[in-house]
Amino acid sequence: MKLSIEAELVYNFAEETQVVANLEASRTSDQIILSESLDIQPPSTILSDTTPHGDRRIRASLSGDVTIRYSAVVENNRRQLLPQSGQQHVWSDLPSEVLPFLLPSRFCPSDKFMRFAQREFAGAGDGIARIMSILEWIHRNVDYVVGVSNAETTAERTFVDRAGVCRDFTHLGITLSRALGIPARAVSAYALQLEPPDFHAIFEVYLENGWWLIDPTRLAPIEGIVRIGSGRDASDIAFLTSDRQCQVISQKIQVFKAP
Amino acid sequence: MKLSIEAELVYNFAEETQVVANLEASRTSDQIILSESLDIQPPSTILSDTTPHGDRRIRASLSGDVTIRYSAVVENNRRQLLPQSGQQHVWSDLPSEVLPFLLPSRFCPSDKFMRFAQREFAGAGDGIARIMSILEWIHRNVDYVVGVSNAETTAERTFVDRAGVCRDFTHLGITLSRALGIPARAVSAYALQLEPPDFHAIFEVYLENGWWLIDPTRLAPIEGIVRIGSGRDASDIAFLTSDRQCQVISQKIQVFKAP
Amino acid sequence: MKLSIEAELVYNFAEETQVVANLEASRTSDQIILSESLDIQPPSTILSDTTPHGDRRIRASLSGDVTIRYSAVVENNRRQLLPQSGQQHVWSDLPSEVLPFLLPSRFCPSDKFMRFAQREFAGAGDGIARIMSILEWIHRNVDYVVGVSNAETTAERTFVDRAGVCRDFTHLGITLSRALGIPARAVSAYALQLEPPDFHAIFEVYLENGWWLIDPTRLAPIEGIVRIGSGRDASDIAFLTSDRQCQVISQKIQVFKAP
Amino acid sequence: MKLSIEAELVYNFAEETQVVANLEASRTSDQIILSESLDIQPPSTILSDTTPHGDRRIRASLSGDVTIRYSAVVENNRRQLLPQSGQQHVWSDLPSEVLPFLLPSRFCPSDKFMRFAQREFAGAGDGIARIMSILEWIHRNVDYVVGVSNAETTAERTFVDRAGVCRDFTHLGITLSRALGIPARAVSAYALQLEPPDFHAIFEVYLENGWWLIDPTRLAPIEGIVRIGSGRDASDIAFLTSDRQCQVISQKIQVFKAP
Repeated sequence: MKLSIEAELVYNFAEETQVVANLEASRTSDQIILSESLDIQPPSTILSDTTPHGDRRIRASLSGDVTIRYSAVVENNRRQLLPQSGQQHVWSDLPSEVLPFLLPSRFCPSDKFMRFAQREFAGAGDGIARIMSILEWIHRNVDYVVGVSNAETTAERTFVDRAGVCRDFTHLGITLSRALGIPARAVSAYALQLEPPDFHAIFEVYLENGWWLIDPTRLAPIEGIVRIGSGRDASDIAFLTSDRQCQVISQKIQVFKAP
Repeated sequence: MKLSIEAELVYNFAEETQVVANLEASRTSDQIILSESLDIQPPSTILSDTTPHGDRRIRASLSGDVTIRYSAVVENNRRQLLPQSGQQHVWSDLPSEVLPFLLPSRFCPSDKFMRFAQREFAGAGDGIARIMSILEWIHRNVDYVVGVSNAETTAERTFVDRAGVCRDFTHLGITLSRALGIPARAVSAYALQLEPPDFHAIFEVYLENGWWLIDPTRLAPIEGIVRIGSGRDASDIAFLTSDRQCQVISQKIQVFKAP
Repeated sequence: MKLSIEAELVYNFAEETQVVANLEASRTSDQIILSESLDIQPPSTILSDTTPHGDRRIRASLSGDVTIRYSAVVENNRRQLLPQSGQQHVWSDLPSEVLPFLLPSRFCPSDKFMRFAQREFAGAGDGIARIMSILEWIHRNVDYVVGVSNAETTAERTFVDRAGVCRDFTHLGITLSRALGIPARAVSAYALQLEPPDFHAIFEVYLENGWWLIDPTRLAPIEGIVRIGSGRDASDIAFLTSDRQCQVISQKIQVFKAP
Repeated sequence: MKLSIEAELVYNFAEETQVVANLEASRTSDQIILSESLDIQPPSTILSDTTPHGDRRIRASLSGDVTIRYSAVVENNRRQLLPQSGQQHVWSDLPSEVLPFLLPSRFCPSDKFMRFAQREFAGAGDGIARIMSILEWIHRNVDYVVGVSNAETTAERTFVDRAGVCRDFTHLGITLSRALGIPARAVSAYALQLEPPDFHAIFEVYLENGWWLIDPTRLAPIEGIVRIGSGRDASDIAFLTSDRQCQVISQKIQVFKAP
């Protein structure tokens, strides 16, 4: 699918603030950036770089009211859906760079869920059947509710609350996957059909020699996703990281099918 | 200094268990491995790899009682002590691979400490003066006490408890550094003079174009340190990560000056 | 002082909901209720009772939009200010009903603060000097900031954040007092001079054979306080406890000097 | 049943320490103390009192190695088992002193479990059927495992871990009951058949105009229980509360059927 993205973010920085922003479509093998533009007002010196796995970041020092506009047209036809079946890898067969995504992290304390995950999902069959079983469990047991969670909510808390938003569904999905020994990581994205339009958080699991994107909220179709960044959990894929507190004034995201 | 290490770890794995172990001296520019040997009994197929920054890991599938023996002679004369002064980098001047060490992590929730760190340490002078001021604060306010903390203790908790062991001192040092915008990471190590001898946890900060090792407990001299691995916090530098619970039967570490 | 209170609370209960409300001025020896009225619309069957220490509660089953109006004129001339000096009681000299206020509670985990409190405040002198020293510490180290904390914030968290509102200042004051072996409890109140006008949370300590009211935020004068309820922490003195989630539609509080 | 209890507790108090101990059988209507003796060595001045609901506490100031010996013969024939059926009370029908046991507390954060409890247990039938359904859920989902939990473990954590000891089972039972609007409180006890013999933690719910004892671990028969104290959760029913840290040297408990 070809997707057109428009993002306009307005922040206020009370003092000179250093920021790292991660909002451009990633240069990964599953999507092609056909065109894009990034504009910051007032103009500011920007340093751009790209991580070894294709995520792009800009760094700048900002103050006052700042408007960041990003637009892009991205084609993602090469992205593949999770296959019907497939074993999970033994750890010795995993690429070295995948190992960190087996570990517990701040919002995904998978070590605490080993007993539950073994009991509930280990008998489901092969690796993909286990993931399907996790997704079905989340769908049946967790409600999509705005306002229950916040930026500090962990998967442990969502597991108790049984409610949350895309970030929480994603953290719970990652946590349960890792608790079974399956590598999983968080992905930030632009997504078609979100209502209201917003950044989206989804996750991917490593099975059958590849990473497979999954939306545990079932809100957006995988072919309607434009990937931005990936990491261990929400800490790593924030749109903006800053060395001081700043204030979001407005945030407008639009994603639509490009002709 | 030339250091000789001997480690003997005995674990029991009730079932076939996948493990990643990180206990060999790292191949980093600040130390030279003069000789080493690794032995696992009963013999087991092992996969070894080295991360891009020189940490070494072995992967295996183990069961029953397993003894891991590692011995090495390491020379660390090229390691340098933290200089007397030096500015902290603006974020745009940091190497790309250093950026993740600015972020909060599971045991080092630096985002919660920004107000305290600004108030207490921001006025201390340049970057190194700030770090010195953090280390002095920890020394005055936190007691080295065994049994107060456990494998789940965060820097937030240690800040309240005012007591802990090397892992806790390290997490608090990292957290306060990151809260000031200074990259910091956890390091596992073998160390001279620890009583009783054990693995050691220390940290390093990125200042003046390099990483500088620091022992916030003041227990071991930096020249008595053999580096094993580094990461965001204790989650990343565990000696053993496994896909099931296992039991430590015994753990003997010896570090002494080699002739 | 003679104080006039007017409170109008509007809630929405999506379903038939059981509630316990604690918003009437307490019948305690330090204040006299000269007149009062309570009105609930639409009219509803109400059960009223008063706890042994004078706090008043109403119980009802409510649904739909409900308006609760309470007005009262209260005189509090007999209330006394914390004396200049006074020893803290040994536990054996405390009245039996005071003992629960020595224990840690949900938002006031005083057991975790024993080391810090001993080191920072134990040398301050007699019991009242210790309390003064705690209040001064809070004043110097914690900022009054709206939006940092929420209904789940504990004293541990506020101690790290170094910011909060009246509820957080109160929890921290209680926690540090109990950590020194001084009984302390939370008090809900109407208060003069709050801007914007709202319910207020303060605390009291037991010293010199009596409970002494303290406002750790320094926002309201003690003689401008009308006491509502008391308990171990915010859990016990909520204005409304319900068996289902409900929604606050509006809340208007007015407190002024009565002629 | 007539039960004979022998308890010998040895503590070390490094400094003069104030303590409140709660280890005598309670004077409640469901048990009769036929004989008892309490001895503290070295001899110490003791203040004894009994709470309005029959729990007994001693207060003393202790230092050095102290041995507390308590023995008693208690008959509990009047205690009744949970009936087969019975509605839960509407809150307006509850005695005033029962209301605090509806509230969340430190180890029993029932407010976080409302969604789960409603979904899982609300449809089970009358009040007693709901409690039975909670007990069955705990039995099926939580393993009795020593070493997973500690003195800080909350019901939230046990719900994730799916493992714990009597204290954890009790906290989870209380939490789920309160989340359904059923009053529940923690009870400390001596109990027949515990292996190894130890203090026991159980809980009781208020239904059908009375409190009913329940052992969620299913380890001890209700007729083999001698009640010591009750409270909101483990904070309130500690055997020893002290104003400084102290050390348990040994603890021997024996409970057997008296002739």
